[in-house]
Amino acid sequence: MKLLTDRILREGKALSDSVLKVDGFLNHQVDPDLMNQVGLDFYEHFKNHGITRVLTIESSGIAPAVYTAQALKVPMVILKKQTSKILTGQVFQTNITSFTKGTSYELTLSRDYINKDDRVLIIDDFLANGEAATGAARLVQMAGATVAGIGILIEKSFQSGRARLDEAGFDVYSQARISRLGKGIIEFL
Amino acid sequence: MKLLTDRILREGKALSDSVLKVDGFLNHQVDPDLMNQVGLDFYEHFKNHGITRVLTIESSGIAPAVYTAQALKVPMVILKKQTSKILTGQVFQTNITSFTKGTSYELTLSRDYINKDDRVLIIDDFLANGEAATGAARLVQMAGATVAGIGILIEKSFQSGRARLDEAGFDVYSQARISRLGKGIIEFL
Repeated sequence: MKLLTDRILREGKALSDSVLKVDGFLNHQVDPDLMNQVGLDFYEHFKNHGITRVLTIESSGIAPAVYTAQALKVPMVILKKQTSKILTGQVFQTNITSFTKGTSYELTLSRDYINKDDRVLIIDDFLANGEAATGAARLVQMAGATVAGIGILIEKSFQSGRARLDEAGFDVYSQARISRLGKGIIEFL
Repeated sequence: MKLLTDRILREGKALSDSVLKVDGFLNHQVDPDLMNQVGLDFYEHFKNHGITRVLTIESSGIAPAVYTAQALKVPMVILKKQTSKILTGQVFQTNITSFTKGTSYELTLSRDYINKDDRVLIIDDFLANGEAATGAARLVQMAGATVAGIGILIEKSFQSGRARLDEAGFDVYSQARISRLGKGIIEFL
């Protein structure tokens, strides 16, 4: 998506061969118009997939996901990051380890907001090793629902996440695919 | 705001004299159209306040705040909840204690995304004791900027937050003001 790749080139900060900071328009400060366009672009790609719900992971996925859900005329569901396991039958939970951040958390989804007939679009800001996205997909499958697509704003294609999701048979659409990062270097596929 | 109070009456769950769950359209599952309307309503109220930035606190404030920011044609900034103090000069931080949840965290704002000329609108989902809103206001003031308004979706008017913000001289607009909660009881001012 040219609007996004242009913005990444203009304002993104490549800090190393794996870290890209986009705090100016996505992760800390957010450009609402860009998020709206991002949502419309996801809508264009997934509009014929029979999506009934958009799922995202708190908190950087929320802004792009809410515009995507609005365009698709379906609810958005925010997957919560809990530090500890909830011991009730009311929720689905799965453990996520973030290699980039060296942290671990329980991704949580209430049973009230997903059912087996749902066709779910998962939206997230970054795809690196695919831990968060595959965790979100596990929750959808625990509910007996279908992952109808995965939409990513920024894919670090040189890391393993995209290959993992492709191998698992998911329909993945990434708006910006980065082939190489380095101090001050950002290259796209 | 009638659209919001109607929705609270229809789908909100009053669990006790202080707890209202609105997980079906705001805190876990989110209704994008309602968030858009909420944003337009905040825009109507604050459009002549010279707002230059919308600030919100992750993660339930993000969806309503991004529509508010879009309508006002300004960026949104997400205040992050950090578990530990960051010891660099790059950020403003202030400690927040949530009495309702019995937790404490450092609310964090990068110096890059606020400056002393900013007129800031703070948006949050709930106002109870006012800890989060006054903390966000402290961060704005630490940056030398101005709190031009505080917009709240659901105010629990029987708790101390609204009085605290009024006494501090802030311009507060709450879309739904709840005077009384009880098991199965929701009353508005």
